[in-house]
Amino acid sequence: MLGNPGPGSANLLPGVLTAKHEGVPVLVITSQHRLGIVYPSSPATFQGQDQLDLFRPAVKWGGPVFEWVRIPEVLQLAFREMWNGRPGPVHVELPAPVLYEEGDDEGVRVLAPGRYRGTGPQASNAQLDEAAAMLASAERPIVISGTGVDRAGANDALLEVVDLLGCPVLTTMAGRPTVPSDHPNYVFGFGPAGDQVRSESDLLLVVGSRMGNLDLPYDRYWGDPSGQRLIQIDVDPGNLGVTRPLTLGIVADARSALEGIATRLHATDLPARDGDDLTRYRALDEQARAAQAGPILDWQGPGIHPAHAAGVIGAVFGPEAVYTVDGGNTSLWAYNVLPATRPRSYHSILELGMLGTGIPSAIGAKLGAPEREVVCVTGDGAAGFNIMEMQSAARENLPITTIVFAEGSWTMEEPNELDLYGETFGTAQGEIRWDIVAQGLGCHGEYVERIEDLDGALQRSREHDGPSLVCLRTDHDANLAIPAEMLTRFFEVYSGPAKPATV
Amino acid sequence: MLGNPGPGSANLLPGVLTAKHEGVPVLVITSQHRLGIVYPSSPATFQGQDQLDLFRPAVKWGGPVFEWVRIPEVLQLAFREMWNGRPGPVHVELPAPVLYEEGDDEGVRVLAPGRYRGTGPQASNAQLDEAAAMLASAERPIVISGTGVDRAGANDALLEVVDLLGCPVLTTMAGRPTVPSDHPNYVFGFGPAGDQVRSESDLLLVVGSRMGNLDLPYDRYWGDPSGQRLIQIDVDPGNLGVTRPLTLGIVADARSALEGIATRLHATDLPARDGDDLTRYRALDEQARAAQAGPILDWQGPGIHPAHAAGVIGAVFGPEAVYTVDGGNTSLWAYNVLPATRPRSYHSILELGMLGTGIPSAIGAKLGAPEREVVCVTGDGAAGFNIMEMQSAARENLPITTIVFAEGSWTMEEPNELDLYGETFGTAQGEIRWDIVAQGLGCHGEYVERIEDLDGALQRSREHDGPSLVCLRTDHDANLAIPAEMLTRFFEVYSGPAKPATV
Amino acid sequence: MLGNPGPGSANLLPGVLTAKHEGVPVLVITSQHRLGIVYPSSPATFQGQDQLDLFRPAVKWGGPVFEWVRIPEVLQLAFREMWNGRPGPVHVELPAPVLYEEGDDEGVRVLAPGRYRGTGPQASNAQLDEAAAMLASAERPIVISGTGVDRAGANDALLEVVDLLGCPVLTTMAGRPTVPSDHPNYVFGFGPAGDQVRSESDLLLVVGSRMGNLDLPYDRYWGDPSGQRLIQIDVDPGNLGVTRPLTLGIVADARSALEGIATRLHATDLPARDGDDLTRYRALDEQARAAQAGPILDWQGPGIHPAHAAGVIGAVFGPEAVYTVDGGNTSLWAYNVLPATRPRSYHSILELGMLGTGIPSAIGAKLGAPEREVVCVTGDGAAGFNIMEMQSAARENLPITTIVFAEGSWTMEEPNELDLYGETFGTAQGEIRWDIVAQGLGCHGEYVERIEDLDGALQRSREHDGPSLVCLRTDHDANLAIPAEMLTRFFEVYSGPAKPATV
Amino acid sequence: MLGNPGPGSANLLPGVLTAKHEGVPVLVITSQHRLGIVYPSSPATFQGQDQLDLFRPAVKWGGPVFEWVRIPEVLQLAFREMWNGRPGPVHVELPAPVLYEEGDDEGVRVLAPGRYRGTGPQASNAQLDEAAAMLASAERPIVISGTGVDRAGANDALLEVVDLLGCPVLTTMAGRPTVPSDHPNYVFGFGPAGDQVRSESDLLLVVGSRMGNLDLPYDRYWGDPSGQRLIQIDVDPGNLGVTRPLTLGIVADARSALEGIATRLHATDLPARDGDDLTRYRALDEQARAAQAGPILDWQGPGIHPAHAAGVIGAVFGPEAVYTVDGGNTSLWAYNVLPATRPRSYHSILELGMLGTGIPSAIGAKLGAPEREVVCVTGDGAAGFNIMEMQSAARENLPITTIVFAEGSWTMEEPNELDLYGETFGTAQGEIRWDIVAQGLGCHGEYVERIEDLDGALQRSREHDGPSLVCLRTDHDANLAIPAEMLTRFFEVYSGPAKPATV
Repeated sequence: MLGNPGPGSANLLPGVLTAKHEGVPVLVITSQHRLGIVYPSSPATFQGQDQLDLFRPAVKWGGPVFEWVRIPEVLQLAFREMWNGRPGPVHVELPAPVLYEEGDDEGVRVLAPGRYRGTGPQASNAQLDEAAAMLASAERPIVISGTGVDRAGANDALLEVVDLLGCPVLTTMAGRPTVPSDHPNYVFGFGPAGDQVRSESDLLLVVGSRMGNLDLPYDRYWGDPSGQRLIQIDVDPGNLGVTRPLTLGIVADARSALEGIATRLHATDLPARDGDDLTRYRALDEQARAAQAGPILDWQGPGIHPAHAAGVIGAVFGPEAVYTVDGGNTSLWAYNVLPATRPRSYHSILELGMLGTGIPSAIGAKLGAPEREVVCVTGDGAAGFNIMEMQSAARENLPITTIVFAEGSWTMEEPNELDLYGETFGTAQGEIRWDIVAQGLGCHGEYVERIEDLDGALQRSREHDGPSLVCLRTDHDANLAIPAEMLTRFFEVYSGPAKPATV
Repeated sequence: MLGNPGPGSANLLPGVLTAKHEGVPVLVITSQHRLGIVYPSSPATFQGQDQLDLFRPAVKWGGPVFEWVRIPEVLQLAFREMWNGRPGPVHVELPAPVLYEEGDDEGVRVLAPGRYRGTGPQASNAQLDEAAAMLASAERPIVISGTGVDRAGANDALLEVVDLLGCPVLTTMAGRPTVPSDHPNYVFGFGPAGDQVRSESDLLLVVGSRMGNLDLPYDRYWGDPSGQRLIQIDVDPGNLGVTRPLTLGIVADARSALEGIATRLHATDLPARDGDDLTRYRALDEQARAAQAGPILDWQGPGIHPAHAAGVIGAVFGPEAVYTVDGGNTSLWAYNVLPATRPRSYHSILELGMLGTGIPSAIGAKLGAPEREVVCVTGDGAAGFNIMEMQSAARENLPITTIVFAEGSWTMEEPNELDLYGETFGTAQGEIRWDIVAQGLGCHGEYVERIEDLDGALQRSREHDGPSLVCLRTDHDANLAIPAEMLTRFFEVYSGPAKPATV
Repeated sequence: MLGNPGPGSANLLPGVLTAKHEGVPVLVITSQHRLGIVYPSSPATFQGQDQLDLFRPAVKWGGPVFEWVRIPEVLQLAFREMWNGRPGPVHVELPAPVLYEEGDDEGVRVLAPGRYRGTGPQASNAQLDEAAAMLASAERPIVISGTGVDRAGANDALLEVVDLLGCPVLTTMAGRPTVPSDHPNYVFGFGPAGDQVRSESDLLLVVGSRMGNLDLPYDRYWGDPSGQRLIQIDVDPGNLGVTRPLTLGIVADARSALEGIATRLHATDLPARDGDDLTRYRALDEQARAAQAGPILDWQGPGIHPAHAAGVIGAVFGPEAVYTVDGGNTSLWAYNVLPATRPRSYHSILELGMLGTGIPSAIGAKLGAPEREVVCVTGDGAAGFNIMEMQSAARENLPITTIVFAEGSWTMEEPNELDLYGETFGTAQGEIRWDIVAQGLGCHGEYVERIEDLDGALQRSREHDGPSLVCLRTDHDANLAIPAEMLTRFFEVYSGPAKPATV
Repeated sequence: MLGNPGPGSANLLPGVLTAKHEGVPVLVITSQHRLGIVYPSSPATFQGQDQLDLFRPAVKWGGPVFEWVRIPEVLQLAFREMWNGRPGPVHVELPAPVLYEEGDDEGVRVLAPGRYRGTGPQASNAQLDEAAAMLASAERPIVISGTGVDRAGANDALLEVVDLLGCPVLTTMAGRPTVPSDHPNYVFGFGPAGDQVRSESDLLLVVGSRMGNLDLPYDRYWGDPSGQRLIQIDVDPGNLGVTRPLTLGIVADARSALEGIATRLHATDLPARDGDDLTRYRALDEQARAAQAGPILDWQGPGIHPAHAAGVIGAVFGPEAVYTVDGGNTSLWAYNVLPATRPRSYHSILELGMLGTGIPSAIGAKLGAPEREVVCVTGDGAAGFNIMEMQSAARENLPITTIVFAEGSWTMEEPNELDLYGETFGTAQGEIRWDIVAQGLGCHGEYVERIEDLDGALQRSREHDGPSLVCLRTDHDANLAIPAEMLTRFFEVYSGPAKPATV
């Protein structure tokens, strides 16, 4: 990312902060005026802004380059810190005169990455032996897969361990795309089945996750830790044992560690597992999902239910597409319905909850994987933040499809307001014709008011040579009707574990 | 301004930073999660963000409210700092549990502003006497009016002093709307006439300005300070004598100070001034402007020259409208052509140079002065930042008119790139139909490709009951052709005073 | 203050922070390594420390000088901020290569203070008229004098206002030396008489004080604000109305404002005041002090009572000496007994409560006022922090007298510990022979175990040509026996106003 | 470390900052007033100090505890960060009401370290295999030992690798005590022999060092990196490849990694090494040291040469004592002469260069290893910073011996001043009788003016039951006469590599 002094840099901040929270490695380069008017700037300085100070809270590391010979060295510092532990954004400030200066670079050493930083942390023999032995001897081991598995490309290694153990596999909230939802050992983690899996387990292997608030890491959902052991593998020592007591914490790259464990399990005489537990868990899971899905399946309209729409989108684009998801309640439906559980297939901003990332993520995904179809599913509140990026897509002629679920409201805000005051404030957004906006920006636009028209609109969008936007008029009441259990759990993210009702 | 924890707060940052640079008093309230998961937040905390740290570089003062009984006291601290010296944004963080808590407010003192903070600084008798005596005895006094004059409502008092002295009056770059450009004593400050006025003066009275980089406060434009005296009146002691040596610095509210000086000048037997100097300055000014205007007036198209368009807009809306101006080169033309020199009539972001403020400023201006017509003139690059706010205007049914000068390029960036590399990178924006975008957002839209159609489009927009947008296809080459002298001066804002050519 | 990179700068911090809390104007200059190894420094940099970051929380303003031509400009910025509002420390960092660089200073402007900053804030005619009118018409006006009066040299002007009004005058806790305690209108502020004065008053004139926690600015000690008006004069707008509701807040230099008020009162036909109130207050004051002094006067030993010792010291050095006071309980006795109520006669660190300042303050006072006698009264805990500065005094041959009240304990910490746990932890210090230590450092030393030997020891110390130290063996039990009412009030500094006992 | 609000906390800063630079794990706990008057504090708050802000630049991590139930969790966060990568200080702020609050701790989980954090990073099999293979096949491998070796208790493992390879072993500047100077493979690193060893090597194994400025990591001293490979083992990924290009960077605990390498080397058929290189290097080393020692050995007085004194001290206390060293030139002599090259035997503050640490380090060393003799060798400038801690030693009856090299000057500052201005400023300190000071503080004191009296004084000090101090009158000229080559190298620490003289 690049920013000029003043506004260019200031406007980067929300995005950089999002990258920090989500653990995205980004190099932010800001330019700056000559040192004659900044560091320090007086009250009379035009755009006199201490950008190092400004970015400090939003990055892992930041520093200036005040002499051009230090450009390679400072960039090495920046990249070293970017990749140290959990990745994240780093900041380098380059005053314009340094940027434009010319000189003899004879003594300046430009090094390949391996010459100035180590590879990521590795698990030792001893650690892998211990982990494998614990898994082999556990009665009810389970595997919980976090988003770090996707980052490390450890998806296959993880499933190999699961297959070897014949045990249930869950994902964290953010780790959704790390396990195919049709995997025979998969259990959905945020319902009664997931709770039972965790609570009955005597050994949890958690990989690439901090077990954060969104995962509700409370005893009522995870069980009594005195009867459980926990192996946690993470690339960052700061993530170990933060919310659940550890038995064995391993700072390591997830892929090589899981491969090491799989190798050892292959060489171990593992106890036979009859699969009864897994069958029981999956039956319970099936039953809970069906109960939750009932009212949704029964929905007759007249408007469009967002879950139905997500179903159509998933059917059209299938499991091999990349999905970027944005918004409030819209993203909850999308999360539960879209078929995106392939590696690097699902992009959403869970930790910071930033809105407006759907379209930019779709552009980035398409640039990064031009051979894959890319679909953005977004609420209309979220769409408004960066709708202009559809013009970027048009300018670059990127064939992505954005579907705006346009019900005309900030629906996710409503339950709290209704609960507190019996009315809502400023949540109504009005009717926006996103398809017309998109046309003004040079994109193909479709407008859909009936669910039966959606498939056709999506097909036409797929076939368009360039970006398309479908404005889908979803139903406000349907969108508001989030299943009660899901809401309860979501509330506990903020409030902490609910007190058990007293008898 | 209000922000929820996480994205709501993060997205406020660029705007708050702009307010800090422009000296705009804003109270930013961010909410926050309960103290059980923030201060400190662990790596596992959802939206775990130290927002006090985050906002620190962007505000004058910030603090949390951790106990509800402190709400009035902390808000008093915030307002006191907001108005102390140059105004600016302040930040208060309110964790949700504190916000929702209920209690007995018997012992909690809620005070009117005058009970917890003083009025602004005042000039003493001695200071006003000295200033008036210096002005009365000066041979060639001049008055330079900054944006602080507009803020203080001191416009009339300033012109009264000018009339009493019969001296030239200039404005700073940001102070443009503080003096009507048809005032008989007005001289344009950024051309040869302005330079001569300043350089020949033996006494400068500068009010409400820091004489910042944009005002090119260098000897070559302001004269030799050894032969000049300088009276500076400013509400902030930090702004005094920053770039030009002071003779008398007065920390005071501009209005009461100027009124005090005027009262004293009325009571003084002022020397007769024949007006020859002023005549000479204004003749030079006239001549320089004509020379600069020549190529613009001669422009025959085929495209639309932005200066011509600004002329039509000014003719339609007249000097009593409020103009908000946004963009790069577009804003330079608008600055020079629009007739906005009434108090609080012209809003632009000069100091930080933030883009995207034109439409939001128009909305704010209309809400603040519903009886006035409000017009936004914006470049197309700038328009893209906050075009969604046209939907806010539609939702609130605010009759504002936005004219987008759509030439399809980041033109202001081009000269530097062409100069350095002989080509441009990423400055082309493509053709956007802003009028269609606006229609999608619920506004009236007009599309104009010929200058002769502009008047009609503007008239229809004025008559529309709600927001309108005119997409005006301006000419790229015309927009690029900024007069050479203006460019030279602009370059010196960044580079400092150019070295005089050696003989 | 000057610090080299690394330790030299790090060691400045506690002192700079003290200056910030106490409002002392100090320029801190730190040197720094070349920019090739700092800004940024890598983990491999020797003394690689971002000192701007380090000092930021401890100063009002800080900035580097990265180009030698900016030295005057940056120092102007620093001095402008140092004196803006309440004074305080500012920081300038000077990398060694910039410090050592040589160049042509032709274009570099070095200005006298009046050319680059304004004078302090002044009260306007209107403000002074209003204040004088309020005072003239008040029934029971009172004057409360803070430490700002001493700083502004406004002591005489304040007493002139008091004399004109014939009203009681109190001091704040820190403002003790601003009013001679033998002034006929003086009432001690922190006992029943002071409470009654404030509570019965219909108009308080507070000058140069923030009415901070140490002044117990609570209704129970200051009265019901609905029946009172408050005029506050302060040099810093941030200090106005912080703890007590204002009627008239004036941002002004205390001296010129008080002189302006006095001038107006002289010109006013003030109502006759019979003095009955003042007589009543002073009688109550006298009675309360006598009651408090009883147990102290009755003390028979065998050890030395610190109050008795302070009495002897005061008798020997008299009211014209400068007293610097340091420590815990020792400083409470000294505060109440020493006769230092002349301008700039009493130096203590009340706001931050920093220990170890007594001896350095004595050195500073002697250097600043070589014609006055300077005496340091310090507890033994406090003495240990900077005892080495006695060697500085010896090296510079400065005739100051330090009296260490050596009872061998951190007595002020004891009551809290005894109250909570029934025992003390680590408060015993052991017997130190401070006189021998001082001899090792090149000073004259005296050791006193009986009160009757103190006078002689002090006389010999006064006559010594160089620094002296008297090690005075005070009694621990006597020191511990702080009067109950004083303790109660002190507790409320931390805890806020005590709840009134319910009937 | 513990600090009360205000001064107690402020005074911790220089020490905490030193711990940060030196990588010392320290938990700093500061107390704080109730939240009713801080966070935020108004200008009226007694000791109103944002201590989190204040400590931020001095610690690795800091946070408050605002609810008592979070005490264990926040302490876990603090300890996790303290030990993450390079250790360092962390800060926890505990407001007094939280500290004193009582409650039911049933739901509060207090965990053993292994339950909330991982063990340090480990090397993987693959990494150890690669390192061992590189070492086995190298022609001229060398081992360079940094202070991290001592921290990790890896001294024996390091020497085992050296013995297996039969190669030279050097230490970094800070790593001095990690290799006994009488080891047959040891070569002194900061002279011509060390330079030759490094430059001729084709494979460097650097352990526990960042190769910082003090190690002069420049090609002229380390050789051409294009012909060298570099294996670096460090516990912190941020330390890898900072100044010298890596071939293999391993983030690992030094001890387990070196043991792993040694195991692999044992199992390898290592090529025979004839030892000629080593013999050549050691001969050169011997010769260079002798040349440097010549003028020192020839010194005849009349004063005491500090190197001679260090020799006597070393002879008396021997290689098994713990030495703490403090000061400027004094510490250079001590560094080169004292026999302290056993694990954890030598404590000095090299990175930040903090002064005054000698006596506190001696106290800490004695408390940590009561069975060992502890000797502090300090210059007189350094001694003055914390001489009061001799009283702490007396109070605790700790038998340590401090020898102050008292030449009465800040000698290390003199060469620069003489070089620049031909004179010195404020470097003379005067004659202090440190032995008498120590007696006043309750210690045994000795005064020595002739080298032949030193042995006796030291013997009497050793036998004293409690702390002793020897005031040793060293010769100023002898102290000033640092060997030229050492000075040249020291200069390059600051200035970077000197340019080679042109022919």
